[in-house]
Amino acid sequence: MVRPRLALVPGEPAGVGPELCVRAAQRAWDADLVAFGDRRALAAAAARLDLPLDILAADASAAAPGQLPLVDVPNAVDTAPGTPDPRNAGAVIEALTRAATACIDRRCDGLVTGPVHKATINLGGIPYSGTTELLAGLAGRDVVMMLANDIVRVALATTHLPLREVADAITPGSLERVLRILHAALRADFGIAQPRIAVLGLNPHAGEGGHLGREEIEVIEPLLQRLRGEGMHLEGPLPADTAFLPGRLRGLDAVLAMYHDQGLPVLKYSGFERAVNLTLGLPYPRVAVDHGTALDLAGSGRADPSSLYAAIETCTRLALRRHDA
Amino acid sequence: MVRPRLALVPGEPAGVGPELCVRAAQRAWDADLVAFGDRRALAAAAARLDLPLDILAADASAAAPGQLPLVDVPNAVDTAPGTPDPRNAGAVIEALTRAATACIDRRCDGLVTGPVHKATINLGGIPYSGTTELLAGLAGRDVVMMLANDIVRVALATTHLPLREVADAITPGSLERVLRILHAALRADFGIAQPRIAVLGLNPHAGEGGHLGREEIEVIEPLLQRLRGEGMHLEGPLPADTAFLPGRLRGLDAVLAMYHDQGLPVLKYSGFERAVNLTLGLPYPRVAVDHGTALDLAGSGRADPSSLYAAIETCTRLALRRHDA
Repeated sequence: MVRPRLALVPGEPAGVGPELCVRAAQRAWDADLVAFGDRRALAAAAARLDLPLDILAADASAAAPGQLPLVDVPNAVDTAPGTPDPRNAGAVIEALTRAATACIDRRCDGLVTGPVHKATINLGGIPYSGTTELLAGLAGRDVVMMLANDIVRVALATTHLPLREVADAITPGSLERVLRILHAALRADFGIAQPRIAVLGLNPHAGEGGHLGREEIEVIEPLLQRLRGEGMHLEGPLPADTAFLPGRLRGLDAVLAMYHDQGLPVLKYSGFERAVNLTLGLPYPRVAVDHGTALDLAGSGRADPSSLYAAIETCTRLALRRHDA
Repeated sequence: MVRPRLALVPGEPAGVGPELCVRAAQRAWDADLVAFGDRRALAAAAARLDLPLDILAADASAAAPGQLPLVDVPNAVDTAPGTPDPRNAGAVIEALTRAATACIDRRCDGLVTGPVHKATINLGGIPYSGTTELLAGLAGRDVVMMLANDIVRVALATTHLPLREVADAITPGSLERVLRILHAALRADFGIAQPRIAVLGLNPHAGEGGHLGREEIEVIEPLLQRLRGEGMHLEGPLPADTAFLPGRLRGLDAVLAMYHDQGLPVLKYSGFERAVNLTLGLPYPRVAVDHGTALDLAGSGRADPSSLYAAIETCTRLALRRHDA
């Protein structure tokens, strides 16, 4: 494969996704992009930005800067920037579904997605907890969500779950699945022969020897011991508050947090603009932006495309590595 | 008050506390220090560091660098650096208790504490979840734990609690107590006339409009609305992963996290060395180091005293402000 073909999904049409995709289409990449979304939303975003956008047929082979091949997935209604309409929920999900299917069918080599507005999708009558979960279902795979910037990679043992459900969701079985997917992806997708993974505890101070919770002793530590016996390099369970100290991150390939708000505040603080969101365990590489729909910025032209650019670059690298493997 | 008198407690004798206190005693401060701890442990630490330590009577008025007034609280047994002995648990807790009592009785104007080893205290037969909780009990006050560095102040709605108990511990009553203590302390101790406080949600994405948990809608938001009606400046409930983005922290005086591992990883990542741990709501200012006993470093002379120095400076400022108020 000289150039991977990446499916690009703008996401919520009233958010910053369409304008970020228009900006991406102005640049030369080491991959061919094909967008899955609403033609009118993309054209309107280009007009607002005063940028050229020549929309090509989906199977167009050579797009120049300013051109974008498109699989048109029409919205139900036009929307103004900043005002999502639940009637478009079906089109947003359909665009994701068709792009994912193209990757599963090997018509595309990777998937790059913009931000979706969870509440609007649900208001539109479609139960939806996140694109990660949607893609896992479409592929019939267990997956792991991992966010990465230039400082650290943070994988999550649980993702979009109410906090009171987290402790019961951390079982030996679920945690083993997550660690195996993470370990395999660091090897296959990132080319790290012997990944070093730091595993956080569930409780403050990693349970402080059982005084602040027993899940470390009863669930996490026995599993880590068993997987170490297979040769995995696993540290922990570590207290979350000190695991991210800059000196500790050196020599680590990833940190596995037990839940969303334990791992992501540091990741976003340490390098938000260039952060990306990866889904590990799919039959294709998927990389998303690490920000939301930014409804307050949509239409202003001020949204920073750095995360989308980083997502395209990362997905390109991962697609090439899968091809070469 | 020209110079506050601060009680200084080294904490676990086998940890880095004694050597950090010896280093502090070499410097001139804008406060008079009086240590509460074991004379032999302090003398041994000074000998290992090859630093002078002239231990004075507790009521000595003018200590020069190299001198340290001491309330001797003898350990049960001598310990080697790095090897805590549960038989000393009673002495460690007694030193904290006597120092806190001196502050309550106004014989001292503030309390600075080194690190205690939770597991060793519990092994010694003394139920202990943290010094913050111990001091709250001695003073008969509700308190709030707040960590601070040069970047951000993070207060905690719950502290040393197993994760599975957190959601039920966030009630309108508990959260209102915490917010009132935090707001009052920012005004009285930090001199901020109209504190701006960002309150995090309990669930990922602050519950995403109820799709990822309902505590924001049912508990947090109604309370914030009511307190805003009294004139408090409260933002939120905010998603934890984006609340700490550097651009958002500007203009904020504190962030209230719902639990330990939601707020402290960012705080420690963003400036560990100069971070301190404050207890708000006590009848006296209390500032602790923001690190543990560092048993692996104890005795090496390599432990960084920056956090203890920052704690002494911060406690001095708070004591002077209380006196001037």
